Amino acid sequence: MSTFNLPKSPRSIRGLIRNGELTKPTTGMAPGYVQSNLVILPKDLAFDFLLFCKRNPKPCPVIDVVESGLYEPINTAPGADLRVDVAMYSVFKYGELECEVEDITEYWREDFVSFLIGCSFTFESALIKSGISLKHVENATNVSMYVTNIQTERAGVFRGPMVVTMRPIPRNKVDQAIQITARYPAVHGAPIHVGDPSEIGIKNICKPDFGDPVELIGDEVPVFWACGVTPQVVARSSKPKLMITHSPGYMFITDIKDEDLQK
Amino acid sequence: MSTFNLPKSPRSIRGLIRNGELTKPTTGMAPGYVQSNLVILPKDLAFDFLLFCKRNPKPCPVIDVVESGLYEPINTAPGADLRVDVAMYSVFKYGELECEVEDITEYWREDFVSFLIGCSFTFESALIKSGISLKHVENATNVSMYVTNIQTERAGVFRGPMVVTMRPIPRNKVDQAIQITARYPAVHGAPIHVGDPSEIGIKNICKPDFGDPVELIGDEVPVFWACGVTPQVVARSSKPKLMITHSPGYMFITDIKDEDLQK
Repeated sequence: MSTFNLPKSPRSIRGLIRNGELTKPTTGMAPGYVQSNLVILPKDLAFDFLLFCKRNPKPCPVIDVVESGLYEPINTAPGADLRVDVAMYSVFKYGELECEVEDITEYWREDFVSFLIGCSFTFESALIKSGISLKHVENATNVSMYVTNIQTERAGVFRGPMVVTMRPIPRNKVDQAIQITARYPAVHGAPIHVGDPSEIGIKNICKPDFGDPVELIGDEVPVFWACGVTPQVVARSSKPKLMITHSPGYMFITDIKDEDLQK
Repeated sequence: MSTFNLPKSPRSIRGLIRNGELTKPTTGMAPGYVQSNLVILPKDLAFDFLLFCKRNPKPCPVIDVVESGLYEPINTAPGADLRVDVAMYSVFKYGELECEVEDITEYWREDFVSFLIGCSFTFESALIKSGISLKHVENATNVSMYVTNIQTERAGVFRGPMVVTMRPIPRNKVDQAIQITARYPAVHGAPIHVGDPSEIGIKNICKPDFGDPVELIGDEVPVFWACGVTPQVVARSSKPKLMITHSPGYMFITDIKDEDLQK
């Protein structure tokens, strides 16, 4: 099924995913609706992780928390089921990727707490609407992601470096890109760095740590935003016995509209 | 020692409190510095409580969290000791006030997590500076507080009604009071109600549930703000085996400046 033929409503798309009829990355799906990162942890790690998110709101903007015993995000996607409504999950054991699966029902535990964390897909729509084109969207590739030398603020067992996304922006549109994304603090907000990658510990801009590389051409400036992969990397570093996340690009689609996250 | 003769720095005042030389409510002390509500809970309740605060940011704006094993708020008051630097503590057992003490060292447990929560003392200074006089400050009484019929959003074991403070504001200054306090989301922010007390379930404005009554005269309008007593009341309702808070009016004085909490 091509993205063009897909239904537009989050509920319908989640239904296709739940029935195994849709197993693709969710870029461009349900336009206008918020897609989110997903981190699922046992409750004994939930306080440390929520505090970590509170202390690091740029990489870890929490949109919703689904408490232990529940798997329906009643505030952000009533009727959804976090065990089956994401097209691809990553299952980590003791911090190592064990497998990728399309359904986590067999892994589910009563003490799991689920965190929905903002995703830059939301502000990308706003950038494109304002006439700032984004190469990875045009090329249908994954955004470039890098581990930086910027340390997050520790909380309990969770600590580590911030991960960022990079988008090449023409020099005369950088200010506009900053202004637009600053209006979306719930999806990473304004850039954390503009310009020289080495200033934030990125040695080779052509070799992202995650995602696909993208070329910087002419007067384009590399602009860096805090990234929702940070909580996954940081959570993994604490080597919890079991942690489940969405697989990169396979986001959870909520019923919240993009503009609801605009300040 | 009168308030006029007190040292001005938070650290010096905390030193007097620690040595038992100052056992008064902290209204007016360390002008310009943020005073905070204090809630101390065992770690097994900390996730539910932090989530409750996240879901109810108006009554429960978290300024700092001091993790288990620690009693020094290194981010907001380095060098302070939460076990001895508040002049009067309330110790609750199974939700009932057991006693008030000047030192909680003997109660301290390694698994305690401490929450510093914003206090309206911060925006009161801003109101007064703008020429809006506050009767309870002028009369040196406690602000009037009421339990409302506004339900907080539940998180885990924590749920219950919102508590509000009320300040009489002359009709022609209400808009200004709204604007000023809206700039302080970390200390309850804009009012949650203006005018008729019955609309939020307050039957008798002359009989506050906490604090002292205050008269409404002439064209004064009752203006209601979310109150930092809410988390205490809500936390008490879950009847934790042990919970410790500051005693009303005996706040924890931080090293943060009022303007640091202005947005």
